[in-house]
Amino acid sequence: MTKFTDTAEMDRFLDKLSGIDSAGDKGNSRLKKIVRKMVADLFDTIDRFDVSDDEFWHALNFLAEAGPELGLWAAGLGIEHFLDLRADAKDRAAGIVDGTPRTIEGPLYVAGAPIVESGARLDDGSDEGEQIIVWGHVREVNGKPITNAIVHVWHANTKGNYSFFDKTQSDFNMRRRIRVDQDGGYKFTSIMPSGYACPPNGTTERLLTAIGRHCIRPAHIHFFVEAPDFRQLTTQINIEGDPYINDDFAYATRDELVPHVQYHEDPEEIASVGFSKPYAEINFDFVLNSTSNPTEEHLSTRPRAPKK
Amino acid sequence: MTKFTDTAEMDRFLDKLSGIDSAGDKGNSRLKKIVRKMVADLFDTIDRFDVSDDEFWHALNFLAEAGPELGLWAAGLGIEHFLDLRADAKDRAAGIVDGTPRTIEGPLYVAGAPIVESGARLDDGSDEGEQIIVWGHVREVNGKPITNAIVHVWHANTKGNYSFFDKTQSDFNMRRRIRVDQDGGYKFTSIMPSGYACPPNGTTERLLTAIGRHCIRPAHIHFFVEAPDFRQLTTQINIEGDPYINDDFAYATRDELVPHVQYHEDPEEIASVGFSKPYAEINFDFVLNSTSNPTEEHLSTRPRAPKK
Repeated sequence: MTKFTDTAEMDRFLDKLSGIDSAGDKGNSRLKKIVRKMVADLFDTIDRFDVSDDEFWHALNFLAEAGPELGLWAAGLGIEHFLDLRADAKDRAAGIVDGTPRTIEGPLYVAGAPIVESGARLDDGSDEGEQIIVWGHVREVNGKPITNAIVHVWHANTKGNYSFFDKTQSDFNMRRRIRVDQDGGYKFTSIMPSGYACPPNGTTERLLTAIGRHCIRPAHIHFFVEAPDFRQLTTQINIEGDPYINDDFAYATRDELVPHVQYHEDPEEIASVGFSKPYAEINFDFVLNSTSNPTEEHLSTRPRAPKK
Repeated sequence: MTKFTDTAEMDRFLDKLSGIDSAGDKGNSRLKKIVRKMVADLFDTIDRFDVSDDEFWHALNFLAEAGPELGLWAAGLGIEHFLDLRADAKDRAAGIVDGTPRTIEGPLYVAGAPIVESGARLDDGSDEGEQIIVWGHVREVNGKPITNAIVHVWHANTKGNYSFFDKTQSDFNMRRRIRVDQDGGYKFTSIMPSGYACPPNGTTERLLTAIGRHCIRPAHIHFFVEAPDFRQLTTQINIEGDPYINDDFAYATRDELVPHVQYHEDPEEIASVGFSKPYAEINFDFVLNSTSNPTEEHLSTRPRAPKK
């Protein structure tokens, strides 16, 4: 049986609507082919599932409603993780097998965080969370320290909320760009982040609920690491022990990205770091691959929340 | 060569992200399958075209920006016309081959227009366009008049703008629900609509320009026709002679939907219809199919602009 979408007439219609049959050289030929593929796939879905007009228009309306939440859809539907898996496969094919694993950026980075020296405090003190010290080194794959790296760090507060998106927090609370020291070392103090769920009743939560899934991320800390002549790294570390650590709705957890959390309760140790109560310590090193391609040194041009 | 997306690992990931492997009976199993299909198609597109991270995120951002313009995307990418083609094919398979052809609704209907008697004037007089008289009958396929039909009509002004979306127009200007008379007849006077282009610099225009297409619709008048025990009809008539009549960016033109336009310049004729200058006359009949399924009597539940 010939499918409804599998006809010469439909091929001509797809050529037409994607601009492939347009006169002259107007338009981007790569984009035309991508549009044709995506619209043909949608036609096939509508036909195969006999999608009704009502279903189609409600889905379109739901997509229009999503707007700024589409970044969360990309995380929750595994698309962002898929991009990582493809990048990993390309790396393996190119023989790039060392270095800290990448994992998703997520939609909550904000450009323009203050640049600080190693040792800085990231939280503004308004959230009475468990204090943490996070430290380590940025190294080449041969172990040599990279002494001119910048470590971008951003994480949520104890309620799972991020400054900028959470207007109750101060500007750039728990967001910094840390300059490593002369040994390639970085260190910061902050508070232990909490995991979080998608915005209640938002399109991401409603979509994932409708397909029987939850919308929860385990606690984590985001990093970009960059240095001249090295490939930019986008990654996260998870907080060991989080109940959702292997059930992240965004599929970002990777075994190599779950450092041990060392808890310190000894008064002398507490005093030695300048804290007044028990704290947690996380040690994590970043290993970067070298590159001779300057575009690999920098973040993708993904549109991000601008600094104010 | 095995494609990157064509592995057991990727199958498991798609089952997981679409909720198909979720414990118990949580979620809608039809939606899970549709989500799986659509995400798998997207993965395939990314893989086949080697879509870069930059391209992916800019596309996602563009989609998020589209928001309320997605209805225009559905028209411009031929998806709305595709839904009509599928409905036509189903009708043919069911032996329903008579009746006025359907064509796309478009995104500009507004519910709640005034209900008026046949003969009403639709324009508020603020736009000095060419006056038109449009009239005809609503009939069964056997020619018998349908005397309790409602003809919903909406059209643009001489600038190609629609009331409600164009805030300079009065409420429901050129939008009415007309009750047919005892012979199934309808008639209205208004002004000749103009064709129009998509909003300048909007996402639809930018997308279609990028694939070498224009974003212009020929002049037309929209109709819904409904009556108890008959299938609801969504259609349009085009204005004969429009230069874009066979190059509609939304693919809505159908040969049977281009009635002849009769121009009247004779002073006596002009006086006889109560006008003061030359006018145009369009005669068009609607033929409805009967139904015993009450849901076919009414519009789809597509979300539409509500009345104020």
